[in-house]
Amino acid sequence: MDYRIEKDTMGEIKVPADKIWGAQTQRSKENFQIGTEKMPIELIQAMAILKKSAAIANNKLGKLSDIKANAIVQAADEILNGQWDDQFPLVVWQTGSGTQSNMNVNEVIAHRANQILQNAGEADRIHPNDDVNKSQSSNDTFPTALHIAAVLKVEDYLLPRLRLLKATLDDKAEKFKDIIKIGRTHLQDATPLTLGQEISGWAAMLAKSEHMIVQNIEYMKELAIGGTAVGTGINAHPEFGERVAAEISDITDKHFTSAANKFHALTSHDEAVVAHGALKALAADLMKIANDVRWLASGPRSGIGEITIPENEPGSSIMPGKVNPTQSEAMTMVVTQVVGNDATIAFAASQGNFELNVFKPVIIYNFLQSTRLLADTMKSFNNHCAVGIEPNKEVLDHNLQNSLMLVTALNPYIGYENAAKIAKKAHKEGTTLKAAAIASGLLTDEQFDEYVDPATMIYPNVK
Amino acid sequence: MDYRIEKDTMGEIKVPADKIWGAQTQRSKENFQIGTEKMPIELIQAMAILKKSAAIANNKLGKLSDIKANAIVQAADEILNGQWDDQFPLVVWQTGSGTQSNMNVNEVIAHRANQILQNAGEADRIHPNDDVNKSQSSNDTFPTALHIAAVLKVEDYLLPRLRLLKATLDDKAEKFKDIIKIGRTHLQDATPLTLGQEISGWAAMLAKSEHMIVQNIEYMKELAIGGTAVGTGINAHPEFGERVAAEISDITDKHFTSAANKFHALTSHDEAVVAHGALKALAADLMKIANDVRWLASGPRSGIGEITIPENEPGSSIMPGKVNPTQSEAMTMVVTQVVGNDATIAFAASQGNFELNVFKPVIIYNFLQSTRLLADTMKSFNNHCAVGIEPNKEVLDHNLQNSLMLVTALNPYIGYENAAKIAKKAHKEGTTLKAAAIASGLLTDEQFDEYVDPATMIYPNVK
Amino acid sequence: MDYRIEKDTMGEIKVPADKIWGAQTQRSKENFQIGTEKMPIELIQAMAILKKSAAIANNKLGKLSDIKANAIVQAADEILNGQWDDQFPLVVWQTGSGTQSNMNVNEVIAHRANQILQNAGEADRIHPNDDVNKSQSSNDTFPTALHIAAVLKVEDYLLPRLRLLKATLDDKAEKFKDIIKIGRTHLQDATPLTLGQEISGWAAMLAKSEHMIVQNIEYMKELAIGGTAVGTGINAHPEFGERVAAEISDITDKHFTSAANKFHALTSHDEAVVAHGALKALAADLMKIANDVRWLASGPRSGIGEITIPENEPGSSIMPGKVNPTQSEAMTMVVTQVVGNDATIAFAASQGNFELNVFKPVIIYNFLQSTRLLADTMKSFNNHCAVGIEPNKEVLDHNLQNSLMLVTALNPYIGYENAAKIAKKAHKEGTTLKAAAIASGLLTDEQFDEYVDPATMIYPNVK
Amino acid sequence: MDYRIEKDTMGEIKVPADKIWGAQTQRSKENFQIGTEKMPIELIQAMAILKKSAAIANNKLGKLSDIKANAIVQAADEILNGQWDDQFPLVVWQTGSGTQSNMNVNEVIAHRANQILQNAGEADRIHPNDDVNKSQSSNDTFPTALHIAAVLKVEDYLLPRLRLLKATLDDKAEKFKDIIKIGRTHLQDATPLTLGQEISGWAAMLAKSEHMIVQNIEYMKELAIGGTAVGTGINAHPEFGERVAAEISDITDKHFTSAANKFHALTSHDEAVVAHGALKALAADLMKIANDVRWLASGPRSGIGEITIPENEPGSSIMPGKVNPTQSEAMTMVVTQVVGNDATIAFAASQGNFELNVFKPVIIYNFLQSTRLLADTMKSFNNHCAVGIEPNKEVLDHNLQNSLMLVTALNPYIGYENAAKIAKKAHKEGTTLKAAAIASGLLTDEQFDEYVDPATMIYPNVK
Repeated sequence: MDYRIEKDTMGEIKVPADKIWGAQTQRSKENFQIGTEKMPIELIQAMAILKKSAAIANNKLGKLSDIKANAIVQAADEILNGQWDDQFPLVVWQTGSGTQSNMNVNEVIAHRANQILQNAGEADRIHPNDDVNKSQSSNDTFPTALHIAAVLKVEDYLLPRLRLLKATLDDKAEKFKDIIKIGRTHLQDATPLTLGQEISGWAAMLAKSEHMIVQNIEYMKELAIGGTAVGTGINAHPEFGERVAAEISDITDKHFTSAANKFHALTSHDEAVVAHGALKALAADLMKIANDVRWLASGPRSGIGEITIPENEPGSSIMPGKVNPTQSEAMTMVVTQVVGNDATIAFAASQGNFELNVFKPVIIYNFLQSTRLLADTMKSFNNHCAVGIEPNKEVLDHNLQNSLMLVTALNPYIGYENAAKIAKKAHKEGTTLKAAAIASGLLTDEQFDEYVDPATMIYPNVK
Repeated sequence: MDYRIEKDTMGEIKVPADKIWGAQTQRSKENFQIGTEKMPIELIQAMAILKKSAAIANNKLGKLSDIKANAIVQAADEILNGQWDDQFPLVVWQTGSGTQSNMNVNEVIAHRANQILQNAGEADRIHPNDDVNKSQSSNDTFPTALHIAAVLKVEDYLLPRLRLLKATLDDKAEKFKDIIKIGRTHLQDATPLTLGQEISGWAAMLAKSEHMIVQNIEYMKELAIGGTAVGTGINAHPEFGERVAAEISDITDKHFTSAANKFHALTSHDEAVVAHGALKALAADLMKIANDVRWLASGPRSGIGEITIPENEPGSSIMPGKVNPTQSEAMTMVVTQVVGNDATIAFAASQGNFELNVFKPVIIYNFLQSTRLLADTMKSFNNHCAVGIEPNKEVLDHNLQNSLMLVTALNPYIGYENAAKIAKKAHKEGTTLKAAAIASGLLTDEQFDEYVDPATMIYPNVK
Repeated sequence: MDYRIEKDTMGEIKVPADKIWGAQTQRSKENFQIGTEKMPIELIQAMAILKKSAAIANNKLGKLSDIKANAIVQAADEILNGQWDDQFPLVVWQTGSGTQSNMNVNEVIAHRANQILQNAGEADRIHPNDDVNKSQSSNDTFPTALHIAAVLKVEDYLLPRLRLLKATLDDKAEKFKDIIKIGRTHLQDATPLTLGQEISGWAAMLAKSEHMIVQNIEYMKELAIGGTAVGTGINAHPEFGERVAAEISDITDKHFTSAANKFHALTSHDEAVVAHGALKALAADLMKIANDVRWLASGPRSGIGEITIPENEPGSSIMPGKVNPTQSEAMTMVVTQVVGNDATIAFAASQGNFELNVFKPVIIYNFLQSTRLLADTMKSFNNHCAVGIEPNKEVLDHNLQNSLMLVTALNPYIGYENAAKIAKKAHKEGTTLKAAAIASGLLTDEQFDEYVDPATMIYPNVK
Repeated sequence: MDYRIEKDTMGEIKVPADKIWGAQTQRSKENFQIGTEKMPIELIQAMAILKKSAAIANNKLGKLSDIKANAIVQAADEILNGQWDDQFPLVVWQTGSGTQSNMNVNEVIAHRANQILQNAGEADRIHPNDDVNKSQSSNDTFPTALHIAAVLKVEDYLLPRLRLLKATLDDKAEKFKDIIKIGRTHLQDATPLTLGQEISGWAAMLAKSEHMIVQNIEYMKELAIGGTAVGTGINAHPEFGERVAAEISDITDKHFTSAANKFHALTSHDEAVVAHGALKALAADLMKIANDVRWLASGPRSGIGEITIPENEPGSSIMPGKVNPTQSEAMTMVVTQVVGNDATIAFAASQGNFELNVFKPVIIYNFLQSTRLLADTMKSFNNHCAVGIEPNKEVLDHNLQNSLMLVTALNPYIGYENAAKIAKKAHKEGTTLKAAAIASGLLTDEQFDEYVDPATMIYPNVK
């Protein structure tokens, strides 16, 4: 293997010749051979946005020459274009401040910028710490990148996929709005509703979750940048934080600001906890939706079978012809993952000491995994399952007609206790509700037909 | 024991003569001898507010006579006054819809109202289902009461206690704003900040948490009432939900509304998940604050010892004279409880099926426990610890002067790498930073004194 | 209110005249007004067992006079008899070492012992620290009591209730061993099994959980006693730990030992984490069992309805005649609680520092709550549900005959792919499997009847 | 791109020409574009062990020809040798039974075996379902592979790394057994112990965790194989399960058995929950150890500083010369991950229905991640931190001599209350304990020196 020698304040170290990272990256790579989870590329990209913004801000503040700033911006843009994805080899399980990934980005940008400036003089030689990291510390850059990555992933990746599924459900709710079916509470037959109403409840869950995610991700638009080492802003210009936030807003077309209290920004991840809490609420809703879909589609002969869903693949390696609700299964597994990730994030967020919380990489790793998985599973569920949901009208109608809970419509006429007697009688004797009602002598054939009409039981029907 | 006979649709059952609950309460009491956790009184009170509001709304809609409505209102008010606290014996671990606690309230109100109306005729006899529960189902009343109880407890009980502690910390931050001290990141010495700045970070956590709780509890002001059995509103008047929400708003002086989609309101608890997520974020912050306090107060001789906290009780049954940071300990234990409760709530919220989620009692039990514990521990921590925090100036100053990380101030003058050499030299040789700096030949005595001044290192100091 | 003056090393304090606790208990009561959760009585009882054992051991070692030892033993026995339950007013949310509850027990025993010895001289006056707490520290007594309480509650309270339910399920499995029914995987129809086999799976879960709990609770029989203040055993006799463990074993009729490494015993709660992990595994199994029961009993008309369960109470406040699987609901709510408690315990267990973990009260509070709830819900589920499970033979048989998955029996004869074609054809055309099979031309009427016999599909049937 | 056409019971599908997987793998790849988490290679390898074992067992039972069995065994061996790692492209988030990964392995083995048998006749053509999956179902193979993978990873990967760290700690405990230091409880100064004793507590945690893991992983040696589709063993020979378990034991040199109740084996993952609970207990212990190490090493000037640890990399991008306890940070982040994974596993394990739990992939994904991370972080922590722990004798001695808690040694001579007075006096006046003791008049200079000797306070010192 070909190597070159790099050095940092601890001395020399060999770096593979085909890599443009530096000494600190190499040290971390060797010292943290833990697991297979690389620092998420979304975090690296967010860091590149930040480094670009910092270079521009430093330049405008007169702290960085045009030539240096331009080279840094170009190198950062190349990272954003995906040209250097293989230059970020560090794992999540490194220092808890993410210093080593900050340095990885600093080193790659510096190296690349120096390549760009290969014909420039020594004075324009770009240093990872003194230039790329200028006016910054890992302690403010990493949480800044953490917030940027979270916001971009949630707003630009997750929300569109949530809306895709919501639109499908809205569409189904509208389409099936006149199909009356039996309701179920406690898994037991209950009063009727329409299939459209039932699905509207799922759509409302996504709408509510969307709203709550939109509001809660907003907290993450406050950035630590400007706090530098311990939150005081030492070695930075007083306007640096706000100016960088403005550049980031410009690049991302979102409204980021510099956090009001930088001591909070370095030590607390309460915003990440709350925002992930909104993802968890979505997860809880998705568990319910995915479960309802697979139960309603259960069968084909001995289940509930009120809807059909697309058949996507053979379901069994031993039972021929079996088709399973696999998209629901993938989705519900994702839910269990998100719930676990939420526990990890809160635990990690609680463990700060003094001027820094050093559990940042594990927080962003879990946050981004949850976001990606929720987004992907909603899209997959949408395309391979939800769009193909169809009512099984025969079954729906059979169940509705058969239901004893239509008796509820009699409460206003004969009272709860008499109604209960009729329902119990029908249940015990296996007859229809109508037969039991008439046998009770409490109402006539005509009255029953007038009072017990499912079509009038699906809305607030008291005048 | 003296008994009377009560009956419901399942038959007769003996109820202790000195109790005014009815048959269904008694059945639940006998069938669910599980644990010691009673349905929280806050939930019962919320239910009483709801029953009162429903009676008024039904009356205004012409569905309930004045005489009945008045008696129900009076009985509900007596519950709200705490007169009947011993009439709600049911445990959390009952039916997951809370039906039995709904009926418990219905039965107690009916019984009490009938006592009030003892001279009235048979026509004015109040029935737990037909009158007290009129236009309602457990399926909409229980989640309505769940939301009311959560909102009241958070806004009227927790937030004032959070603000109490925040005010104390704000006060300390202001008072100690000129005391410069060493910063710590990774538990290692870092650049300086003031004790006031450090505490301002804690205060900012509470301010941020407060803001996030205030926003997220808002979601719980949407009420299920009006959805009745499965969300359709069967057996209710179309205006019933909104009218009841208005009455509840009136009674509580908060802005409750009738939920836009009742199918969601009965089956999803995403709002509770998100709101509790905000409580968990607060908990994570409190863990950090309580830990910082006890570490800073550690000692008295061999710890960090930069602050002192009140001595409240003997600390040890064997070590005489020992005083421990017990308020921090109570607070951090509460945090672990809240984190566990959060896991319970999300799990429970995910398990709805079809038209109902039947994990409601465990959700509200955990939600209220978290709220109460967080509130109480903040007040206790405030009164018995935070108000008494004092700086130990001698130690603070000693640590500051001793710090090698003041070297950071030299970066702009001699570069990161040279500065590192100086710090390492001082560390290795056990000398002062200044001695090592001058020995390096990189700067003079005067320059060192000019550049390395803690008082200029506690804010963004680059011009 | 009547008071008397008590004092400790911090000075004087008023104690209600009708209470026999002392100054430190009173201080804790005033300083920790947090929540409503009292230190569990099981922990107090375990502490009483320990104090009794310590007095005996100290006496045998010649460190405590007969007169003092006897008085302490008598006072402890009175606590064990429940005579002084109202003398332990402290909450869980106190110092994390449980020092104040240790002192509460020391003070109550000392006070009561002095009452017993009222005619004795000053030399026989019993001191809470010097006598009752002799050779002990909160740091070893509290974790010792924690272990004792956990072991007693699990072995003597939970396991018998687990066995009760297991016996019922074993009985049902045996009774229904010849009732062939359709299997379900992915909620979809699968190959048949017997109802007895299905229930045997539930019984096997309880048996496996029982085995795992029995083994894992064993770890908690190692006791911290003898470690005193920091694990060194300072101020104790070298044999004290072992002798006390022997006395405890004698009193409880279980085999407790003195922990091999006391530094571990004071700082680590890995045994509690593992033992509660076994409770969580039981919880996960119970969720599955309770869900299966309610799904199999779902209906009455539009669910799966293959079994019936007892009707215990009216199910709905609005839908007359509705009966719900409420025991399953209570049980599944308990499961969500246990899962949350598990998160709390692990979090708390991870937070030890140096010579002590100060999250002990919250650990034992959650451990005992889980144990009690699991035990109670199993008993309640057994008595009010499991014992009454009956097959609905008509439905079971209908579903079985209708199943397309009987086609699996054809694999060995015509191959997986051909079998799949037949199943798909029957599904698509809504015919019986037999009709589709014969129409396929792949086998005759007689062959079908020979090959496809559910009675031969419920065991390893290849020869 | 070059393709070939594959087909299954759902029809034809294009597969990349350079891949040897089949139609079902391809379908899953297209239908589940969710996340980046591939099915862990350890699970694939376990599946290969199983397929090899099944082929041998089927052959010995006369169900599979020698030529077919040999080809399957060879193909499986090639997978085990890592030759086909790129042929398993499926993600975790697929069907919850893992059917698609089972088929992936079946298809790759069949394809490869047919390559091996390219000159054989049609009769020897190997079918993924009929031959490779013979006598099996995904429902028993996947949980079997899940157990095999977990056992191998824990016993062969994690335990050696745990033992490595334990050995280092044992070594340090022995080396430092005579270095007396101050103890700390509640972060406050306490009675002394030796540094060796303190570290022995850490070593005891690892020893206890090791023991608990060894015992609890044992439960996972029971295998589902033989249960086939729903646990009945349909389409398998009665001896198949046991024979396969024997072959697996032979290949792995571990003692696997066929599970006693296959209905349990398909639907319950209580063994995985318990075994992972033991991993979580280890995690809780590691949090404590990693925290102690970084606190003891905190400083260099203003922390506790009683030990030093290796300097592995520059600690700060802004503060020159800073060195951080990064191995502790990586380890504690891993702990938070394991705690989250534990929540995921228990949730997933609880969600089985009827004859199958369909959360298997997420369970094994989390189980293996925890195992790998714990193992790697222990090795990394050992090599880059623990081996280099050295006492800072000057600080240790200074703290010890300074301690007020040495007063505890006076309890037996002057009683707890008098001792407390002395400690408080010294604390208040800032004097030495000795000065305060003598000033109290309770004991002489000589007595103090005799009684208060740290060297006699580090073991049970009462005779």
